[in-house]
Amino acid sequence: MSSGVVYLVGAGPGDSDLITVKGLRLLRRADVVVYDRLIPFELLEETRPEAELIDAGKQPTRHRLAQDEINSILLDRALKGYDVVRLKGGDPLVFGRGGEEALACRQNGIPFEIVPGVSSVNAVPAYAGIPLTHRHVSSSFTVITGHEDPTKPESSINYAALAQIGGTIVIMMGVSRLSEITRQLQSHGMDGEIPAAVIEWGATPHQRTFIGTLDTIAGIARARDIQPPAITVVGDVVRLRGAGVAWYERFRNLTESTDLDEFQLPRTHSRLLEKDLV
Amino acid sequence: MSSGVVYLVGAGPGDSDLITVKGLRLLRRADVVVYDRLIPFELLEETRPEAELIDAGKQPTRHRLAQDEINSILLDRALKGYDVVRLKGGDPLVFGRGGEEALACRQNGIPFEIVPGVSSVNAVPAYAGIPLTHRHVSSSFTVITGHEDPTKPESSINYAALAQIGGTIVIMMGVSRLSEITRQLQSHGMDGEIPAAVIEWGATPHQRTFIGTLDTIAGIARARDIQPPAITVVGDVVRLRGAGVAWYERFRNLTESTDLDEFQLPRTHSRLLEKDLV
Repeated sequence: MSSGVVYLVGAGPGDSDLITVKGLRLLRRADVVVYDRLIPFELLEETRPEAELIDAGKQPTRHRLAQDEINSILLDRALKGYDVVRLKGGDPLVFGRGGEEALACRQNGIPFEIVPGVSSVNAVPAYAGIPLTHRHVSSSFTVITGHEDPTKPESSINYAALAQIGGTIVIMMGVSRLSEITRQLQSHGMDGEIPAAVIEWGATPHQRTFIGTLDTIAGIARARDIQPPAITVVGDVVRLRGAGVAWYERFRNLTESTDLDEFQLPRTHSRLLEKDLV
Repeated sequence: MSSGVVYLVGAGPGDSDLITVKGLRLLRRADVVVYDRLIPFELLEETRPEAELIDAGKQPTRHRLAQDEINSILLDRALKGYDVVRLKGGDPLVFGRGGEEALACRQNGIPFEIVPGVSSVNAVPAYAGIPLTHRHVSSSFTVITGHEDPTKPESSINYAALAQIGGTIVIMMGVSRLSEITRQLQSHGMDGEIPAAVIEWGATPHQRTFIGTLDTIAGIARARDIQPPAITVVGDVVRLRGAGVAWYERFRNLTESTDLDEFQLPRTHSRLLEKDLV
């Protein structure tokens, strides 16, 4: 019997319409679907009635499957001849551990394909009206995980360099560490008055976006009881939300959010003149 | 007459199957489609026969439309009541100038929506078998445009910080500036032996991937005559391609590429032991 194929598929961010055409086609014909906690669950309705659906995010025991257990399931089902879709929120290779699953397949002779997805890195800010790059404002961006403790010596993130690099900073998850992270950036010389946004449940109907500065955003997140999943954006591009790029919250009538106007950002960062914006 | 809606749609990278379900639906019903140079052109076959198709990438005069001309077309057609899809390669807000188009709509009272796309930032490395993040290897990444001249004082990129930041570096386009960029990084202390990859026409059947080091990659790109569009990735994650994550080139039988093995990377960077990879 020849083995099945493992497809490492990015489901995109919260909005189920943001899965790719290829990802949806594979999902609809999969024999087995192993899915994560943060996928849009409507997508599971697209699977075949006889498909085996495996929740890798939470088991009856309330523990998540460990990565090696997930790898074992992928290999086991593929070896039995089934085509497997490993469905992950966002993109499978951006904080998605898809690389580990790909290597497990390769090392066991199982064919695999990677189907990139719309990453939360760009989609969640987009749904909050924040472009990661914008002419005259930012031509680069750095993405870090907020899951690492910045005070630990083994932290792989060089906060001194991050504080100086310029451009947009995107902090994925780790909202509970936000005050440590922002303090690190400020202690390394980053201006506390740079605009910042925290976005909870981005690209979903539950999206909430709050605006402040590098100095205030952690306190705002605490005051507004921001819970995971949440993404924080730091940089002058945040100002574009208030300048008019916001659209999803208007469209969905999501009112529990703030605009820059409310926070009266300090004038030192008001270098985005009208003429620069278009 | 009420105005139409402008949809700023990411077409995804080269593979036309990587457009989102929402993007394809909007494209199929659009009255007007204004498209860029780097979209998968098969997508235009999805438009209605009566749709107006406008090439914003190249005009009969062989000049591209200027951004304000594009904005004018979007506004003009929407004001006439047409629904307009502005189709951009990758994601509309990642080096896509979608923010400028959104602001032009807002300032003229035209409703718009942003439809994020699969960005070349993650998809092109994925098609070359390179995850942007990988446990024990990289937990952050920085994305810059190669279009800025790094030797100019007004360059917005802080190369001293970039050289120190750690994690993966993605250089979008600008292959002609690659030697200046890599020289800047090395002159600011970045190890010339860090693995690097250059990917031409990523996520298309013409994809070519060549592997070297920070020190050698610009020379390799020149020797192999790498042309735009091209993306360069610098960091230890490049090693994962050779370790087994490569898939697309095997699948498509694209042979004009190199693996790490051929380059015999120096042992100082061989810290990715088998046990770390899975």
